[in-house]
Amino acid sequence: MDKFAKKIIDLPKRLLVEEPLNLYSGIRGMFGESSKTAGLPPGSAIYTGFRKDTPFNIDLFSYSENTLEEKNNISIEEVINLPQNGNFNWINIEGIHHAEKVKEICDAFQIHPLTMEDILSVGQRPQIDDTENYLFVALKMLQFDSKKNKTLNEQVSFVLTKDLLITFQERKGDTFEAVRNRLRAGKGRIRKEGLDYLLYALVDTVVDHYFIVLEKFGDILEEIEERIMFQGQKRDFDLLYTLKRELIHIRRSVWPLREVISKLERDEIKLIRKHTRLYIRDVYDHTIQAIDSVETYRDFISSLGDLYQSVISNKLNQVMKTLTIFSVIFIPLTFIAGVYGINFENVPEFQWEYGYAYFWSLLIGMAVITLGIFKYKKWM
Amino acid sequence: MDKFAKKIIDLPKRLLVEEPLNLYSGIRGMFGESSKTAGLPPGSAIYTGFRKDTPFNIDLFSYSENTLEEKNNISIEEVINLPQNGNFNWINIEGIHHAEKVKEICDAFQIHPLTMEDILSVGQRPQIDDTENYLFVALKMLQFDSKKNKTLNEQVSFVLTKDLLITFQERKGDTFEAVRNRLRAGKGRIRKEGLDYLLYALVDTVVDHYFIVLEKFGDILEEIEERIMFQGQKRDFDLLYTLKRELIHIRRSVWPLREVISKLERDEIKLIRKHTRLYIRDVYDHTIQAIDSVETYRDFISSLGDLYQSVISNKLNQVMKTLTIFSVIFIPLTFIAGVYGINFENVPEFQWEYGYAYFWSLLIGMAVITLGIFKYKKWM
Amino acid sequence: MDKFAKKIIDLPKRLLVEEPLNLYSGIRGMFGESSKTAGLPPGSAIYTGFRKDTPFNIDLFSYSENTLEEKNNISIEEVINLPQNGNFNWINIEGIHHAEKVKEICDAFQIHPLTMEDILSVGQRPQIDDTENYLFVALKMLQFDSKKNKTLNEQVSFVLTKDLLITFQERKGDTFEAVRNRLRAGKGRIRKEGLDYLLYALVDTVVDHYFIVLEKFGDILEEIEERIMFQGQKRDFDLLYTLKRELIHIRRSVWPLREVISKLERDEIKLIRKHTRLYIRDVYDHTIQAIDSVETYRDFISSLGDLYQSVISNKLNQVMKTLTIFSVIFIPLTFIAGVYGINFENVPEFQWEYGYAYFWSLLIGMAVITLGIFKYKKWM
Amino acid sequence: MDKFAKKIIDLPKRLLVEEPLNLYSGIRGMFGESSKTAGLPPGSAIYTGFRKDTPFNIDLFSYSENTLEEKNNISIEEVINLPQNGNFNWINIEGIHHAEKVKEICDAFQIHPLTMEDILSVGQRPQIDDTENYLFVALKMLQFDSKKNKTLNEQVSFVLTKDLLITFQERKGDTFEAVRNRLRAGKGRIRKEGLDYLLYALVDTVVDHYFIVLEKFGDILEEIEERIMFQGQKRDFDLLYTLKRELIHIRRSVWPLREVISKLERDEIKLIRKHTRLYIRDVYDHTIQAIDSVETYRDFISSLGDLYQSVISNKLNQVMKTLTIFSVIFIPLTFIAGVYGINFENVPEFQWEYGYAYFWSLLIGMAVITLGIFKYKKWM
Amino acid sequence: MDKFAKKIIDLPKRLLVEEPLNLYSGIRGMFGESSKTAGLPPGSAIYTGFRKDTPFNIDLFSYSENTLEEKNNISIEEVINLPQNGNFNWINIEGIHHAEKVKEICDAFQIHPLTMEDILSVGQRPQIDDTENYLFVALKMLQFDSKKNKTLNEQVSFVLTKDLLITFQERKGDTFEAVRNRLRAGKGRIRKEGLDYLLYALVDTVVDHYFIVLEKFGDILEEIEERIMFQGQKRDFDLLYTLKRELIHIRRSVWPLREVISKLERDEIKLIRKHTRLYIRDVYDHTIQAIDSVETYRDFISSLGDLYQSVISNKLNQVMKTLTIFSVIFIPLTFIAGVYGINFENVPEFQWEYGYAYFWSLLIGMAVITLGIFKYKKWM
Ligand SMILES: [Mg+2]
Ligand SMILES: [Mg+2]
Ligand SMILES: [Mg+2]
Ligand SMILES: [Mg+2]
Ligand SMILES: [Mg+2]
Ligand SMILES: [Mg+2]
Ligand SMILES: [Mg+2]
Ligand SMILES: [Mg+2]
Ligand SMILES: [Mg+2]
Ligand SMILES: [Mg+2]
Ligand SMILES: [Mg+2]
Ligand SMILES: [Mg+2]
Ligand SMILES: [Mg+2]
Ligand SMILES: [Mg+2]
Ligand SMILES: [Mg+2]
Ligand SMILES: [Mg+2]
Ligand SMILES: [Mg+2]
Ligand SMILES: [Mg+2]
Ligand SMILES: [Mg+2]
Ligand SMILES: [Mg+2]
Ligand SMILES: [Mg+2]
Ligand SMILES: [Mg+2]
Ligand SMILES: [Mg+2]
Ligand SMILES: [Mg+2]
Ligand SMILES: [Mg+2]
Ligand SMILES: [Mg+2]
Ligand SMILES: [Mg+2]
Ligand SMILES: [Mg+2]
Ligand SMILES: [Mg+2]
Ligand SMILES: [Mg+2]
Ligand SMILES: [Mg+2]
Repeated sequence: MDKFAKKIIDLPKRLLVEEPLNLYSGIRGMFGESSKTAGLPPGSAIYTGFRKDTPFNIDLFSYSENTLEEKNNISIEEVINLPQNGNFNWINIEGIHHAEKVKEICDAFQIHPLTMEDILSVGQRPQIDDTENYLFVALKMLQFDSKKNKTLNEQVSFVLTKDLLITFQERKGDTFEAVRNRLRAGKGRIRKEGLDYLLYALVDTVVDHYFIVLEKFGDILEEIEERIMFQGQKRDFDLLYTLKRELIHIRRSVWPLREVISKLERDEIKLIRKHTRLYIRDVYDHTIQAIDSVETYRDFISSLGDLYQSVISNKLNQVMKTLTIFSVIFIPLTFIAGVYGINFENVPEFQWEYGYAYFWSLLIGMAVITLGIFKYKKWM
Repeated sequence: MDKFAKKIIDLPKRLLVEEPLNLYSGIRGMFGESSKTAGLPPGSAIYTGFRKDTPFNIDLFSYSENTLEEKNNISIEEVINLPQNGNFNWINIEGIHHAEKVKEICDAFQIHPLTMEDILSVGQRPQIDDTENYLFVALKMLQFDSKKNKTLNEQVSFVLTKDLLITFQERKGDTFEAVRNRLRAGKGRIRKEGLDYLLYALVDTVVDHYFIVLEKFGDILEEIEERIMFQGQKRDFDLLYTLKRELIHIRRSVWPLREVISKLERDEIKLIRKHTRLYIRDVYDHTIQAIDSVETYRDFISSLGDLYQSVISNKLNQVMKTLTIFSVIFIPLTFIAGVYGINFENVPEFQWEYGYAYFWSLLIGMAVITLGIFKYKKWM
Repeated sequence: MDKFAKKIIDLPKRLLVEEPLNLYSGIRGMFGESSKTAGLPPGSAIYTGFRKDTPFNIDLFSYSENTLEEKNNISIEEVINLPQNGNFNWINIEGIHHAEKVKEICDAFQIHPLTMEDILSVGQRPQIDDTENYLFVALKMLQFDSKKNKTLNEQVSFVLTKDLLITFQERKGDTFEAVRNRLRAGKGRIRKEGLDYLLYALVDTVVDHYFIVLEKFGDILEEIEERIMFQGQKRDFDLLYTLKRELIHIRRSVWPLREVISKLERDEIKLIRKHTRLYIRDVYDHTIQAIDSVETYRDFISSLGDLYQSVISNKLNQVMKTLTIFSVIFIPLTFIAGVYGINFENVPEFQWEYGYAYFWSLLIGMAVITLGIFKYKKWM
Repeated sequence: MDKFAKKIIDLPKRLLVEEPLNLYSGIRGMFGESSKTAGLPPGSAIYTGFRKDTPFNIDLFSYSENTLEEKNNISIEEVINLPQNGNFNWINIEGIHHAEKVKEICDAFQIHPLTMEDILSVGQRPQIDDTENYLFVALKMLQFDSKKNKTLNEQVSFVLTKDLLITFQERKGDTFEAVRNRLRAGKGRIRKEGLDYLLYALVDTVVDHYFIVLEKFGDILEEIEERIMFQGQKRDFDLLYTLKRELIHIRRSVWPLREVISKLERDEIKLIRKHTRLYIRDVYDHTIQAIDSVETYRDFISSLGDLYQSVISNKLNQVMKTLTIFSVIFIPLTFIAGVYGINFENVPEFQWEYGYAYFWSLLIGMAVITLGIFKYKKWM
Repeated sequence: MDKFAKKIIDLPKRLLVEEPLNLYSGIRGMFGESSKTAGLPPGSAIYTGFRKDTPFNIDLFSYSENTLEEKNNISIEEVINLPQNGNFNWINIEGIHHAEKVKEICDAFQIHPLTMEDILSVGQRPQIDDTENYLFVALKMLQFDSKKNKTLNEQVSFVLTKDLLITFQERKGDTFEAVRNRLRAGKGRIRKEGLDYLLYALVDTVVDHYFIVLEKFGDILEEIEERIMFQGQKRDFDLLYTLKRELIHIRRSVWPLREVISKLERDEIKLIRKHTRLYIRDVYDHTIQAIDSVETYRDFISSLGDLYQSVISNKLNQVMKTLTIFSVIFIPLTFIAGVYGINFENVPEFQWEYGYAYFWSLLIGMAVITLGIFKYKKWM
């Protein structure tokens, strides 16, 4: 089996050494605390997530094909009073656990209280809502923090109006940085195509990041596979369990996403131009591919679990066989030795001239017979 | 593994200490005794549930945008002779095991005998029925009684006519208290919007309470996970089993609910104004989310079951290894000692000058060889 | 755990004592012997079931709103020559293994040979067939024979024409007795509403009887659960297996029933008046509920199987631990005793003044160390 | 448990004695070698099956309502030059591994090369193809060879034109014999109704034969069930495995058959008269029933597998308990005996007057205590 | 059991000897590294696969019914400047990891950047895209390299325009060689029918090669089955695991293929003539058959896994039984021997005249009783 494993595996071993159990985001990690709003009127401004360490921050990208203005950390007033100069405006908001500030902005742009509740209720499934005045999309963002070797997840919501795209995030992150750089560089289509294309580009980036996480998972799985094939320790099963749990969470993010993006492409959504749909179709394909990977990994994890069980059974069998072989050989021998340790007065063998030789012949004969039986039964 | 577990878990440990097995509502808990009506004509007034300790009680909320009249424990006559003054009337009935009183009310408001049977047959699936004169909805209500640390379930039925909403409950409870308070306060939409909105608000509250129960389940699961990772005792598996059984019941409540609420939103139901449908769509999303949580928890429970099995196998292997190592080392040693306890007359070794030293060398040599084999086989 | 189990369970224990294995109807019990008709022309009159002990018997109920004539054990001729006096006629036939008699009746009423074959082929799935002249419905009837503590199943077929309802049964039974009594009493709707309503009432009774069987199953499951929680003996798993097998049969009866009743309600069947459909919708709901219970019980049985396995594993671990602890403590002690049973001539310890005390110190010291290790490893 | 099993089982035991493992048709048995045609142009005349021992043979039935001509082993020329005298012609061909002869016939009747490929590619799923000139149907035929106690499978293809039905078989067999006899007898509908009815009769016979096989399976399952309940030997699990594998093959035959027959009934196929569809609907029901049996048996096999596992676990537990009880009782006793076998000089007990009695009291006391503990733990 | 296995199996044993673990293509083998394009603008020319050892190569087949020109290793310029002489042109490109060259060609033929991205993103699911100017199809190609006894997989993309078919492959291979030979031979339809027929022929060849791989899998499975029936070694389970993993990959290739080919047949694709659809329907059937085989093999693997577990359990039981029988027989005997090895002064038995005979009677009596118990319990 050595050759098999050696031949194939050249993946970096760092992963398992640097404690992939860091992946842990807990069973309840993605669910939030929806119960907080129980019995309250709809549209109550209550953040239901666990992430509360990000300062509230608003960034603005105001651009047209030839111009770009980038402002960081602007005030709510500035957002509300954006000049209507024909530019495309992208407002990125971080730290939505400051629920009252989110409410202020939503009220200013006439976002319905139910939509606002959805922005703040971060335990929800990805969703899409096409209202009269705006298009609302909420997704789960997954990132692999390669420094901490850890998966992060957060909800990101998009509100697209005619001249404005607002994105709401739970915490600061660099997922959108590549898109920002494409805006800054001004090359390619991105500055020419308007806000529906920007929405596409951001959603595409979110989906692309799923693959980063999934490929890490694939690497870890390959490494676990190798370990189990050779040894199979309890730790490997713990790892499998952890990956499985994380995949359950990713599944919750990616299956409804499919439906959301499919609606984005198929429904006659006013704010998405026919032209942009071509690109959204491409994101759709990527989403299907991500789903496919998740399901395939689940299959692998389940198969690896079976493999682990077979390794463990095999080990137990080895151990029991060893014990049995040893016991079965020595038990009769020890018995014979015991017999000739008796203190009766008239044991004829004791006086035999070759008594001791006879004794050893008996022992060796016994051992030979037992070993013969084992050979016959193919236990040795 | 210590670090892993320590790092993450800061959930209150009370849960498992205060006996979560209290959750127990039995395998048949939600099914009722439908067989009671076997062979009877349709519309027989027979309560099929197990809860018979609640006194019969009728409460009335009569309100308009500016007025509110609240009356407790009114008589059936008062209900039947409600003044038709343009007010919205909500009649809440508790203790439906008084089947004949329910019949009296149903007859007075011309509720069809089959509907009445559905109100009293509490083992049924959630359902909706849009008749010519009224809209009928039946749901399962789940509550977490945080004093007794226990889940309660009951059937709640709604009959909505043009100027009346009647709710039928099996026992007294505070699930609707938050809605009552919103009515009393008179703030927000609730007094302005009419009875279809009140129906929405009550259904929303029922669904919201599912999350309270589910989040408790999530907390318990996280704690069981930690316990299994460290130790894995039979009690943990019993707990897993109990949670699984409860989830089976919750599943029975929440999957058909989805269909019910979807009909409420989509079908052209006369008594639900288009305006209110927006809110019902929101409850629909919450129902999907509850289903999602239930299925996810089922997945977790199944994975945790596998993890438990692997912990148990591992323990058995440890135990067997210990036994085997001890046995295999000492069995040959004991045999040798037995050999030199024989009473033959001419055992040359007995007379050797260094016989005893030779004996110990034999023992130690044997032990060293066996240990060497164990080391080689990586069993120690 | 005591408290948990004691608190909840107050179900009669008789069930398991009175040998619920009586439930047994065999793996092939419901399939019949369809192969008997292999290669024969369609419409061959061959009964494919196993029940052949019921004498052939025909009963007649001839009724209108105000009159009722009940005749037992009438001849085939009487059936064929029924007077056409505007009365509703219900002919109930028992003992269809008298295939040639069934053929005679079918021929007289121009029932198609393929329908006749379906009446006699009792291993089939429930089905519905709306022909030009009559409506054909075949169901599975389940009864719980509470005397013998046993489930009985049989096929019952309905042929509904304009002025006649014929029911075909495999054996005598009291399932329809309640309906007969309602006909005799003449109260309620049943005598006024005609034969489609009678069909409904009979089908409803059949479905109602499913719940009697299912509730027995629920009781047995609760008892098995308790037994497994405490002890977990092989017999409990055998019981689980038996219940599972019976549920597989019930499933075969109830899933296609759903489709049959749904067609009865939805298709524009000439002989079912719109008015009666309301009632059939109610039976449909009950069927769904029965399906729901079956699936839920299957879930429970599977979970209880897992629980049983965990109980068994736990027991094996206990046994092995006990063996290991005993062995590991005594093996070294026995070895030491063996060592000092040797017969070498110059063993210095033998002459020591406190040799015997030294020997015991050695034994006790050894035992203390081993016990210490067990304590440390938390095995005791 | 004795009573339970005795009471029910009266099935012939011959089955398992006469080696049901004969059932074996191999994992690849039904797949054939489709790879043989890889890269070849469509319509290459290559037989992909394993059965090559049947001589090529053509039989002709030429009939009308009043006449019947039966010819065996006719030449290809005769087939091609059939007189067009208004008779219905059924040509049955056996031994299709003579691919070039099949090609000759297909070319003569203008059967498309792709259809010819389908006739020869016997590893395919059942299929139907309605072309302009003919209707093509391919099925899997299952037979139970009761002499060899063995299942046989083969592909049978039907080509129906206006005045001709050609059937292609892999080997000689008596499945169609009953239909031939009905043709010969000339009673009933078969000679009057034409070739679409003949097609129905043959397909019906094929489906009927499924039940013969499935009922044998049911008998074997019942017997295995009984054996496992009592003993549970490895051989029983091997049998279960073999049945499962055969069912996998049958499943492959019967699921697509459903679709094929459904198309035969529903699509507006020119060559099937409306009148005949009634009969095809009946075959459809039988197909559903066969599917149902297959799925039910799969369920049973899986449940029986679990039962077997529980029997095996139980046995292992019994064995381990016996070992443990024996060991735990004797280990301390043997230790004590060993202690008093030491050769120290001053062992006070040795000189005691009642030393030997004291020794036995010690042994008996020890044994009593150990047995007491076992009793308390309910291990004995 | 010997007879059973001997009778059936005559498959070449080479397979398992020549190390089928070579099949290994790794868990991530088919996924590629989609994450490479994260955040990049759509249509970035980045190859995401692992195969980078094939030199870039372009081959041209330019043909009409009567002419054929074949050119190997032509330059990109030649491709771009193909003469428009009414010939059908097939351009086959190998080595697409030269992404910039692929881009150059795509740009020249106005292939959309998103399509180009799909050609280079080899971890994707099979897909089809019908654009205004061309039809795009991407498939997974599986080959069995019979020299290395190894499965190879690669993505192959087809771009079909009015007068051009371009195929993109990851590496050199002989899958298409049979089609090339048919083109060279000029027999049959292939040179007459145009490029849509050529597309069909190539896709058909790809699907045909699936069966070669699947039939190898079937052979290996049959051999594993035999091995497990006889022995059941850990290596067999490893093999099963490996096959399962490969099937997971094949599944990912073949399920979406179904959808792709179905669209090719059903959608009104301009470039596919009605005439050719007949042939595509045939490929569709083959795809279904491949899916069917994959699912069937998965079923078999899972059943074989269960069989393996039962074999292993059985072995463990045998081992434990042997240990137990030996221990239980000798433990009391050894105890008795120990008893009579004591050194007490007044042991009456020691002085008995027939003491030694008495001692042996005791031993033999004890052994007989124990053996009797074993016989009774049917353990021997
Ligand atoms: Mg709420
Ligand atoms: Mg919401
Ligand atoms: Mg962020
Ligand atoms: Mg992308
Ligand atoms: Mg690897
Ligand atoms: Mg793409
Ligand atoms: Mg694409
Ligand atoms: Mg009823
Ligand atoms: Mg009802
Ligand atoms: Mg209440
Ligand atoms: Mg809510
Ligand atoms: Mg935790
Ligand atoms: Mg929403
Ligand atoms: Mg037939
Ligand atoms: Mg029929
Ligand atoms: Mg009856
Ligand atoms: Mg009912
Ligand atoms: Mg109970
Ligand atoms: Mg379906
Ligand atoms: Mg209802
Ligand atoms: Mg039986
Ligand atoms: Mg081909
Ligand atoms: Mg074909
Ligand atoms: Mg044949
Ligand atoms: Mg039939
Ligand atoms: Mg029928
Ligand atoms: Mg074989
Ligand atoms: Mg991208
Ligand atoms: Mg290639
Ligand atoms: Mg092909
Ligand atoms: Mg075909």
